Amino acid sequence: MEKKVTLKELAKVLNVSVATVSKALNDSYDISEETKIRVKKKAKELNYVPNIIAQSLKLKKSFSLGVIIPNITDEFFARAVHGITKEAKENKYKTLISISNEELQSERESVDTFLNSNIDGLLISLASETQMKKQYEHIKKIQDQEIPIVLFDRVTDEINCDKITIDDFKSAYDATYFLLRKGCKNVVFLSTISNTSVCELRKKGYAQALKDSKIKVGATRFLEVTHENLEIELKKFLDHEEVDGILGADEHSAVASLHLVQNLGYKVPGQISVIGFTNGSLTKFTVPSLTAISQHSELMGKNAVQILLSRIQNGYLDKEMQHKIVQTNLIQRKSTRSKS
Amino acid sequence: MEKKVTLKELAKVLNVSVATVSKALNDSYDISEETKIRVKKKAKELNYVPNIIAQSLKLKKSFSLGVIIPNITDEFFARAVHGITKEAKENKYKTLISISNEELQSERESVDTFLNSNIDGLLISLASETQMKKQYEHIKKIQDQEIPIVLFDRVTDEINCDKITIDDFKSAYDATYFLLRKGCKNVVFLSTISNTSVCELRKKGYAQALKDSKIKVGATRFLEVTHENLEIELKKFLDHEEVDGILGADEHSAVASLHLVQNLGYKVPGQISVIGFTNGSLTKFTVPSLTAISQHSELMGKNAVQILLSRIQNGYLDKEMQHKIVQTNLIQRKSTRSKS
Repeated sequence: MEKKVTLKELAKVLNVSVATVSKALNDSYDISEETKIRVKKKAKELNYVPNIIAQSLKLKKSFSLGVIIPNITDEFFARAVHGITKEAKENKYKTLISISNEELQSERESVDTFLNSNIDGLLISLASETQMKKQYEHIKKIQDQEIPIVLFDRVTDEINCDKITIDDFKSAYDATYFLLRKGCKNVVFLSTISNTSVCELRKKGYAQALKDSKIKVGATRFLEVTHENLEIELKKFLDHEEVDGILGADEHSAVASLHLVQNLGYKVPGQISVIGFTNGSLTKFTVPSLTAISQHSELMGKNAVQILLSRIQNGYLDKEMQHKIVQTNLIQRKSTRSKS
Repeated sequence: MEKKVTLKELAKVLNVSVATVSKALNDSYDISEETKIRVKKKAKELNYVPNIIAQSLKLKKSFSLGVIIPNITDEFFARAVHGITKEAKENKYKTLISISNEELQSERESVDTFLNSNIDGLLISLASETQMKKQYEHIKKIQDQEIPIVLFDRVTDEINCDKITIDDFKSAYDATYFLLRKGCKNVVFLSTISNTSVCELRKKGYAQALKDSKIKVGATRFLEVTHENLEIELKKFLDHEEVDGILGADEHSAVASLHLVQNLGYKVPGQISVIGFTNGSLTKFTVPSLTAISQHSELMGKNAVQILLSRIQNGYLDKEMQHKIVQTNLIQRKSTRSKS
């Protein structure tokens, strides 16, 4: 194996400080363009491989961000991470991603990994188990080390940090109201994301819209299922209950129910209308195309990075923590009736 | 901020070596269960936060794997990473993921990040730009440091390392043959993943099947597009060419073309049959449901980790590098004719 030149040796050859070399290689604003070019040229010439760990310990800046998401196979999170990665890169930050698989213990381990990798900041969307058990010590541990955090999409009031979400209550309220306005009277709330903050808020928004209805409508009905038992549970439900509208709390429940009710012989939207969160790539290709609440996942990721970088650059306690709301849109397609 | 106990201080209190404490906290097989319990109890008592960097430098084992994928919004890669993460966790390894966004330079930076984070091994699916430019110095740099690599799905003959793929040539050959057997004569190859090794092999498989056909069929026709211009390009193509079969090299091209040709008034499968790689969640919910080549992405991720861990545990040069092939299946649904 070829011997590597160290940062110190490189600094000596260039007759500048170690900090100058580090900053020049990291494109710091503190260093002139001329010096940057000189340092980079010599680094290349001497085959210098930057030791990011050593750099980090010296400069206390790693120019890397950690991301913890609950589930990589959920397109919403994949798209949010896509937005995060792009925005971080624009700002010359690297992104490392870890997946909790909805488990508290995995989330704790991801936090420990990042805490010891000297990241400059952390973006987290909480695991359902974490939200259900309301155990946040590992998140507080990050704050004890004064490392900035942004919670996105799945957040909690119990942590005082920057947050970014949609208005889950209002989005579900508006979608339910939309169904009622189109003449639906028996709307069921269907979810495969139980035990998450977003699902709880969406349930409340749906219930409030039914309560506020000026015309008489059916009672609130929540059907909380898994990817595996959705089909059997929804079928059982339809055998006994009258349903003319489905609000899917997540893309899978909306798309799968749209598919199932048609297989069972219901006309969509003639007999049953379907609306779903989150307007991913599935939505466009269903028949009929799905009316959806767009959560603008990539934009949420982008904004989350902007908030985090501002906190990193201006200091941990620079200003009060903010909770940014990304506006949603209801995108009307063919799975809901077009006339009121 | 609360002062952290160091590994050294913890070892002193316990009257054992630093290595013993490290190994105990890492659940090493070298350490007895009794010692592990004693060490972990004391670590918790004294509020010890493991410094993974320091541990790594001492033990040369970080129990973490790096993963570089070209695109997180492609469900194939999301599912492969899901399989990777699960299998790594089963084996008490952490997984950190980085995304190249199909760019060579980003892939190089991801490699540098991982090289300096003391990972035990790396799983990489190459960016399209890397494959197009055939520049692999950054991959060779990993090998210079004797860090095991497994290339998965998108691989190259120019790197001697463990690899895992499907048989892309044969899978495309079989899918094309299937269309011909069902009576298609004018099959077009449609792709949004140009410049990747998998696309090149699938093109060859498709072309060979046409060449081998005993009945007279149309010439090979490749339509290589982007997500953005697929609709306009395919429409233009259909205006001038006779097409009764589409082989989609990726899920997006298959699902989008299935949707488009029906919007243009063609009957599927009556007038045009459609087959696509990779059997993701889109496939099941299209109308008609899509006949697909299942690449078993999660299984590929799982097997990739097994190969990597075997290499890590048995040493870098333990045995010859292997190229494992994951078998594909053709899953016949309703987008292709059922009779020959």
